[in-house]
Amino acid sequence: MRLLRFQQKLSENRMGVMIDSARFAELASSKGSELILDFLRDPKCEAKANQALEAAKKQLADPGDRSPKGVFDLDKVTVLPPISRPTKIICMGGNFSDHLQEGSTSLPPFPISFLKSPTSLVGHRAPVFYPRRVKLLDYEVELAAVIGKRCKDVSRKNALEHVAGFSVFNDISARDIQFAEMKRGFCNLGKNFASFAPMGPFLVTPDQAGNPDNLGMELRVNGQTRQFSSTKNMVFKIRQLVEFFSCMTLEPGDIITSGTPSGVAIYRKPDKTPFLLQPGDMIESKIENLGRLQNTVVAETSPVKPAL
Amino acid sequence: MRLLRFQQKLSENRMGVMIDSARFAELASSKGSELILDFLRDPKCEAKANQALEAAKKQLADPGDRSPKGVFDLDKVTVLPPISRPTKIICMGGNFSDHLQEGSTSLPPFPISFLKSPTSLVGHRAPVFYPRRVKLLDYEVELAAVIGKRCKDVSRKNALEHVAGFSVFNDISARDIQFAEMKRGFCNLGKNFASFAPMGPFLVTPDQAGNPDNLGMELRVNGQTRQFSSTKNMVFKIRQLVEFFSCMTLEPGDIITSGTPSGVAIYRKPDKTPFLLQPGDMIESKIENLGRLQNTVVAETSPVKPAL
Repeated sequence: MRLLRFQQKLSENRMGVMIDSARFAELASSKGSELILDFLRDPKCEAKANQALEAAKKQLADPGDRSPKGVFDLDKVTVLPPISRPTKIICMGGNFSDHLQEGSTSLPPFPISFLKSPTSLVGHRAPVFYPRRVKLLDYEVELAAVIGKRCKDVSRKNALEHVAGFSVFNDISARDIQFAEMKRGFCNLGKNFASFAPMGPFLVTPDQAGNPDNLGMELRVNGQTRQFSSTKNMVFKIRQLVEFFSCMTLEPGDIITSGTPSGVAIYRKPDKTPFLLQPGDMIESKIENLGRLQNTVVAETSPVKPAL
Repeated sequence: MRLLRFQQKLSENRMGVMIDSARFAELASSKGSELILDFLRDPKCEAKANQALEAAKKQLADPGDRSPKGVFDLDKVTVLPPISRPTKIICMGGNFSDHLQEGSTSLPPFPISFLKSPTSLVGHRAPVFYPRRVKLLDYEVELAAVIGKRCKDVSRKNALEHVAGFSVFNDISARDIQFAEMKRGFCNLGKNFASFAPMGPFLVTPDQAGNPDNLGMELRVNGQTRQFSSTKNMVFKIRQLVEFFSCMTLEPGDIITSGTPSGVAIYRKPDKTPFLLQPGDMIESKIENLGRLQNTVVAETSPVKPAL
């Protein structure tokens, strides 16, 4: 299943299942924020999704039915990030062999990580705000694994049983601030302005995501390919990351991301300038089987309300 | 007001106001997790608290009344952390002149920070679990400021208007892991095991907290003073931290901590060993006007459920 959260009016919290790449059928709505995880907890969730898909297809097959009930165009709704308010978004600081090489960094001795805040999460087609104080804005396409069940000290072998699904993630980074923080051994602000964590469009269940250790990844800016790699270049694979970070205790909705492959703007030679993000840039982050996450960079002019 | 969250049975979420240092009067209970902030949003909250205090004092003055209704001993309930699930716990990586000196670190050019996860929060008298994989466990007494109103880009002058109250915080740190992470410019796991963020016992409203730039701080282990300083030694004061981090957009419940003064175990000369925390150690973190937060170190043996 490819599940998404959406709204047509502010404060709505609805979810649907994709029919094809452009249309979806509504499944549920609720005030509870983690709608997709709640749905996946229902043992009959697959049967319910199939039922909704059958009904939608039947309507779509009827040439007289011009506005089939419960069927929506992905491009005509506001898509929310699939997860609303995780307790942890654990991101890797260098976990792709190609990215470590471009940054002249050695292999990490264990998964090196930092947290992103849930207030940085936004969905497909949401603007990425370029903060006034930032000088060097960059992109990072990543694979996101979403935890479905509370777990602690899981083995690598069973790790993927605790993953509810996968999604595309873009770890937006203010390099000037990030590098100044990293010089002192910490990193927060450079990674955590509002809208610095686009995620989506969907949560794709493991049966349809394919092998998380071998998924093609691509990031384009204004149609030009900037990152092109595969999760097979991850130093620590998703199952190892889940095993490792489960020592912290993982909660449903917690997100662990893969780290990013090579091709980020900051390491471009001889001149990074034309590669850095600018207001107006359209970013497409794509992962095989998981879809295409699109976001446009917009100059920050007023306070940013998070999509919680 | 000195407000606390408590429970007598698992899954309860109740709150009270302190009568004196040992007893409190119940004010409200709810399923909503940020009970104290909800209460403070009520324009009549002070009148309600005073009413509850009056009623409690009247009962306590009656020598015939042995079990006054709605009055509790602090030591006979489970005290929860005053905030349940903030979107951000922003902690400083070096913000006291005395601590920077003991670590031979220069003054930070701007507030250097990392995030703690809400799953690390625990309350007064909760155990601090010593994770199996950790070798060097340390304490850090800190002042915590809790944001009451969403804010962005606030001025230093108005910053404290956005603070709902103050609390005592202990930034428990696994130094072996923290320093290995910091070598690569990031820090997460070393600061974020479950129970690594004791906070409380109370949220103290600004009118009773005193000047946040001049509060005495002390941390004791098994009765011995280990840290003894004042928030006057902070490089960036609370109002500056709120101003600085409001560029991220701060949400109600978000926590900003002060950083810690000198006296941590890891920098003790000639031998840090006797100062590092061990299972069985009793830690008391105290801040002037804000009370005493007590926690005991316990060897981790089974999965840790967070106090969300």
